[in-house]
Amino acid sequence: MQFLEKHQTLFERYLEKQLMEGNPPGLYEPVNYIMQLGGKRIRPILTLIAYQVFRSDVAKALPLAYAVELFHNFSLVHDDIMDQALLRRGKKSVHAKWDINTGILSGDAMLILTYKYFMQFDQENYFASLLRVFNRTGLEVCEGQQMDMNFEKRLDVRLEEYLKMIELKTAALIGCALELGSIAAGAQPEDVAHLAAFGRNIGISFQLQDDILDTFGDPQKVGKKVGGDIVQNKKTFLVIKALEMAADSQRLRLNQLMNSTTINEAEKIATVMEIFKDLNIKALAIQAKETYQQKALAQLEAVQGGNEAKEELRMLAGALLVRNF
Amino acid sequence: MQFLEKHQTLFERYLEKQLMEGNPPGLYEPVNYIMQLGGKRIRPILTLIAYQVFRSDVAKALPLAYAVELFHNFSLVHDDIMDQALLRRGKKSVHAKWDINTGILSGDAMLILTYKYFMQFDQENYFASLLRVFNRTGLEVCEGQQMDMNFEKRLDVRLEEYLKMIELKTAALIGCALELGSIAAGAQPEDVAHLAAFGRNIGISFQLQDDILDTFGDPQKVGKKVGGDIVQNKKTFLVIKALEMAADSQRLRLNQLMNSTTINEAEKIATVMEIFKDLNIKALAIQAKETYQQKALAQLEAVQGGNEAKEELRMLAGALLVRNF
Repeated sequence: MQFLEKHQTLFERYLEKQLMEGNPPGLYEPVNYIMQLGGKRIRPILTLIAYQVFRSDVAKALPLAYAVELFHNFSLVHDDIMDQALLRRGKKSVHAKWDINTGILSGDAMLILTYKYFMQFDQENYFASLLRVFNRTGLEVCEGQQMDMNFEKRLDVRLEEYLKMIELKTAALIGCALELGSIAAGAQPEDVAHLAAFGRNIGISFQLQDDILDTFGDPQKVGKKVGGDIVQNKKTFLVIKALEMAADSQRLRLNQLMNSTTINEAEKIATVMEIFKDLNIKALAIQAKETYQQKALAQLEAVQGGNEAKEELRMLAGALLVRNF
Repeated sequence: MQFLEKHQTLFERYLEKQLMEGNPPGLYEPVNYIMQLGGKRIRPILTLIAYQVFRSDVAKALPLAYAVELFHNFSLVHDDIMDQALLRRGKKSVHAKWDINTGILSGDAMLILTYKYFMQFDQENYFASLLRVFNRTGLEVCEGQQMDMNFEKRLDVRLEEYLKMIELKTAALIGCALELGSIAAGAQPEDVAHLAAFGRNIGISFQLQDDILDTFGDPQKVGKKVGGDIVQNKKTFLVIKALEMAADSQRLRLNQLMNSTTINEAEKIATVMEIFKDLNIKALAIQAKETYQQKALAQLEAVQGGNEAKEELRMLAGALLVRNF
């Protein structure tokens, strides 16, 4: 993603200077650790580009972009505790490196720091609008995580519910990143709404892409084994759609496979994939993904002006959603 | 505390109407549960009275007062997980009633809701000042909790460190409650500072009172057995001061008692109390408590005007710090 380099470099340079040095160090070290674990920094970059659609002094939006990245990482720290995930970006997650209490408390500090960075954006006129958008999104992300946890215990998740869950858990913050950038730049309400909708639809599309890649991805391009979601019985678009479309015998077989504690992994993956194939699930998932992608691009077209920055958003969306399958 | 009834009733009526009805219900039920567990509502009432020192339309400050109470309860929900405390106000703590994940996530939602209530205070001019004070305090409360957890693993906590810890963990939010109320009412910066300092000193005094009551309280008046802190080896003012003043033989004995896993509870309490008696710890603790109380009252005196509300603050402080020992 060479075309993003300018914004990426701007953000990384800012981030490097934000080392927290408060006391006691045990509270702030995990914040520095997780913030420096890397990642693609998609969300803060979206904030910067959205700002640039309307204004050229993009460095002013850096504290907001950083707030978005802090919030995202706060949610990762707490989610990793809830999901008992020991790895994050190939390194130890915060609670695995320290302990659960440290993960809870440092995460809390990150959420408060998020608001502290909001206050560093030096346009007091926009504080109230920015915070309202952010508070709404913060709650949506919590709601999405709660739905996701609820789904683990259910076998009857409907597609509509699943789409709502990924919208809240993943897409809302991506939409918010763009919304904040455009509000901060003083954009018209209709342009703010178009960019927010662009982000939400890209976010849903991105999560569907993730579901597709986990089962149908090219291992060489994706860089990991496929089938992890199937092994873990994760409720993804693929399995929910399959259960919805399956004939009784196929549904029975899928449920047996998901309940079995003895079946071997490779066999489970192969059998589920065969059912997916019979039901044409891959094509249906790609179709759904591309529908959201098209919706997103139509919203982007509707934004007035800022052609260069819009082109950057279009290319970024394309890169995120490239067909590695 | 009859004189407080007006503000208490005003706040309780407001609180009853704030039932959260968002989806999924599993995220919001714990919020409603903890907010309705009762408690003395000291912090929100302080916000209301501080507002009333300068303005009479006190109902306007209710969203701010509620935000303070939400934040306090958020910190209780997460602290109870970290401290593995199964009871809160005689009922099950949130993670004991539901589970740890629910406690983490509902707590996160409460912290975000805190900021949402801030935005409901309808004086946009004061948003930035209110939020700056609150963000600083939120981090202080996290820092205090981190220090408290660090102290559990240490035997060499100095009195100065202990006083800093209780200032951050307990007193900062009490000071903040008053600071917010006065800022919201448009008070002069020097009056805001006096009220904040009044609150901080009352908060430290209140925590010292708590330490004293746990060991020397009149069980009839306090409503619980004494000696819990001694049994749990809690680092309180009493034991830290005792270790500081002890002769070598007494220090050795105290350390033995704190390390022993076999000694019987009643004997441990009696022996520690004997050492406290030899070192005059009770009187020293009362002296420290009253020093902070005097400092607090001097700060209150320095506030301009608002005599009736100030009298209410004086009486509230007196009631919180009554000598039940």
